[in-house]
Amino acid sequence: MRDVAIIGIGQTPVGEHWELSLRDLGYRALRSALEDACVEAPQMLFVGNMLSGALSHQENLGALIGDYAGHRGIESFKVEAACASGAAAVRMASLAVGGGACDVAVALGVEKMTDGRGDEATAALAMAADADYESSQGLSFVAINALLMQRYMHEFGYRHVDFAPFAVTAHLNASTNANAMFRSRITAEQFEASRPVASPINLLDASGICDGAAAVVIVPADLARSTSPYPLVRIAASSSAIDSVALHDRRDPLVLQAAADSAWRAYSHAGIGPEDIDFFELHDAFTIMAALSLEACGLAPHGRGVALANEGVLGRQGRIPISTLGGLKARGHPVGATGVYQIVETVQQLRGAAGENQIPGARFGLAQNIGGSGANVITHILERAS
Amino acid sequence: MRDVAIIGIGQTPVGEHWELSLRDLGYRALRSALEDACVEAPQMLFVGNMLSGALSHQENLGALIGDYAGHRGIESFKVEAACASGAAAVRMASLAVGGGACDVAVALGVEKMTDGRGDEATAALAMAADADYESSQGLSFVAINALLMQRYMHEFGYRHVDFAPFAVTAHLNASTNANAMFRSRITAEQFEASRPVASPINLLDASGICDGAAAVVIVPADLARSTSPYPLVRIAASSSAIDSVALHDRRDPLVLQAAADSAWRAYSHAGIGPEDIDFFELHDAFTIMAALSLEACGLAPHGRGVALANEGVLGRQGRIPISTLGGLKARGHPVGATGVYQIVETVQQLRGAAGENQIPGARFGLAQNIGGSGANVITHILERAS
Repeated sequence: MRDVAIIGIGQTPVGEHWELSLRDLGYRALRSALEDACVEAPQMLFVGNMLSGALSHQENLGALIGDYAGHRGIESFKVEAACASGAAAVRMASLAVGGGACDVAVALGVEKMTDGRGDEATAALAMAADADYESSQGLSFVAINALLMQRYMHEFGYRHVDFAPFAVTAHLNASTNANAMFRSRITAEQFEASRPVASPINLLDASGICDGAAAVVIVPADLARSTSPYPLVRIAASSSAIDSVALHDRRDPLVLQAAADSAWRAYSHAGIGPEDIDFFELHDAFTIMAALSLEACGLAPHGRGVALANEGVLGRQGRIPISTLGGLKARGHPVGATGVYQIVETVQQLRGAAGENQIPGARFGLAQNIGGSGANVITHILERAS
Repeated sequence: MRDVAIIGIGQTPVGEHWELSLRDLGYRALRSALEDACVEAPQMLFVGNMLSGALSHQENLGALIGDYAGHRGIESFKVEAACASGAAAVRMASLAVGGGACDVAVALGVEKMTDGRGDEATAALAMAADADYESSQGLSFVAINALLMQRYMHEFGYRHVDFAPFAVTAHLNASTNANAMFRSRITAEQFEASRPVASPINLLDASGICDGAAAVVIVPADLARSTSPYPLVRIAASSSAIDSVALHDRRDPLVLQAAADSAWRAYSHAGIGPEDIDFFELHDAFTIMAALSLEACGLAPHGRGVALANEGVLGRQGRIPISTLGGLKARGHPVGATGVYQIVETVQQLRGAAGENQIPGARFGLAQNIGGSGANVITHILERAS
């Protein structure tokens, strides 16, 4: 397959966009990525989205947004992998260009969660879990993560406050990202004192309900080299794996096997190891997921993800910076868009365009997007090529 | 890109499968396709589905069905393009194998429409239309097709009964297909006398609410040649295009531009023309769609699709056999699965395994799957290679 690169990025601020429809949001990110890439139109458009059917009564987003953006006649599909839909779209666009089906593909992630009334968003998010064996028992998606966190604390002897560094770091990083939703810094005390959502998950363990869209333009690396004014950012690896959707079907619920499978395949494709990663855009939808993701990717031993966080290495000056522009926790988690935000931010870092949030001299960025409680996981490694 | 072929096909009967869940249906078709191909597991699985969120409160189908079938660790995503989701999955699988991302991909289409209560399925199907500008005005999906049919009749001077040959042919062909839902033959008189759904669409113009799943195994053609006992069926062309979702945004609503775009690209890729097609699995969700699809694919001039049907050329002995195993009208239209059923049936024909429904000596089969009222259209040309 051909080597591929990202030559354009676009995003809307994450927030509550009451004045914008799903298609408006998608259009803005798409337009902005195409402009950044100096490209008129994509040949293929992959739209990552999870909730448009449930919350906006709209499917067929490939045609809807492709047409709204003025691109009739192109190929376009919606790709869904629950909260990993965004990275799934990136994976598809990367496949399409890498495999030679086209030269210019766009991966767009878009989600409009505020279209839901009352607790419709909570009910819709439960579709990421197993409807027949989990949701039907009354388990919401946050409750499933609470079970995981409770077990993790029990198994490895952590207190709730030990998870604070994930949220504190994310909020600190978001405070200097104009596109982030929650830009206030928080302390470990505020984290601990925030109200419970589903014990032991407190409000500040969890990402919020929000709207947003992000897009990337993917082309063959050779084309990028000859046309793009930016430092070349290539997709060194793109990999995914599935596990059972229901927690109870896993050998060990505290091991994100699909995250490990996809991460280690990605390392192998990129020819590097965890020690080579300069920063990690991880899936901190809940603090427990951040810990498990660090472990699955070989950045902390089993059961030591939280201990690592407390060593102070996750900040921008640390050994393994995470959520460098705020992560799911504080930049925000518009679910089907999140995986594309992660890639956009990884490109910002590798271009040296992350402003106050810049990780100096970063060469390899790792981004991992998790669908469900670990059911479908997509890992990308991006590299600033010299 | 590499030449690809289909070495395994599987399907469940189309019907009301009250005793089977979404994952059961998907599993059965997937298992049966893998057995047909003598393959243990796919490396990538693309699941075409439109309505699982709305009707079964379940997303994340890639992981759900992949895991249920025993394939943890593989890559799997859901692909959505409204009623063209099935062919979109085939397109993705074809891209993945053709581009060299993997050697064995499965496209699975699955839909469980009977999970909906009351008119939930009708409301869910409206998600294929434009929620902000069509559905919000109270237009159901059948009403949109009724507008098209009314305009077509007005513009070209047809009576309702002139559309009968589409439904009569489909039911006749379904009568000898054990997997078809509606196996009773009908007459033009019965067609004309059937009760109105949304005038001028009568019950026998329209496909019904149903459940079903179908799957195909796609591998490089070289691998197929050396391992498969079946006549080689290659994907000579796989192409798609989008148009506006809303009818009122089209230059001429009676021209399915995306269908024409994708068909003519497909002819060009395959190096053939409409005159080389031996049979056509078209998207007869409504009789008007069958007429417009024939016209878009160059098999009838503009406004002459219905006239062609009345020349008696669409039957199995005719010049352009359509819906050879019953089509959407009579085999059934489990929406997200339909595009894969079309491909499965095309393979049956090209293998010479269509039994009483066999088109003798068929070499080129055309299959066209339409999402929305023409918004996203995927065309495949399959060829029995010598």
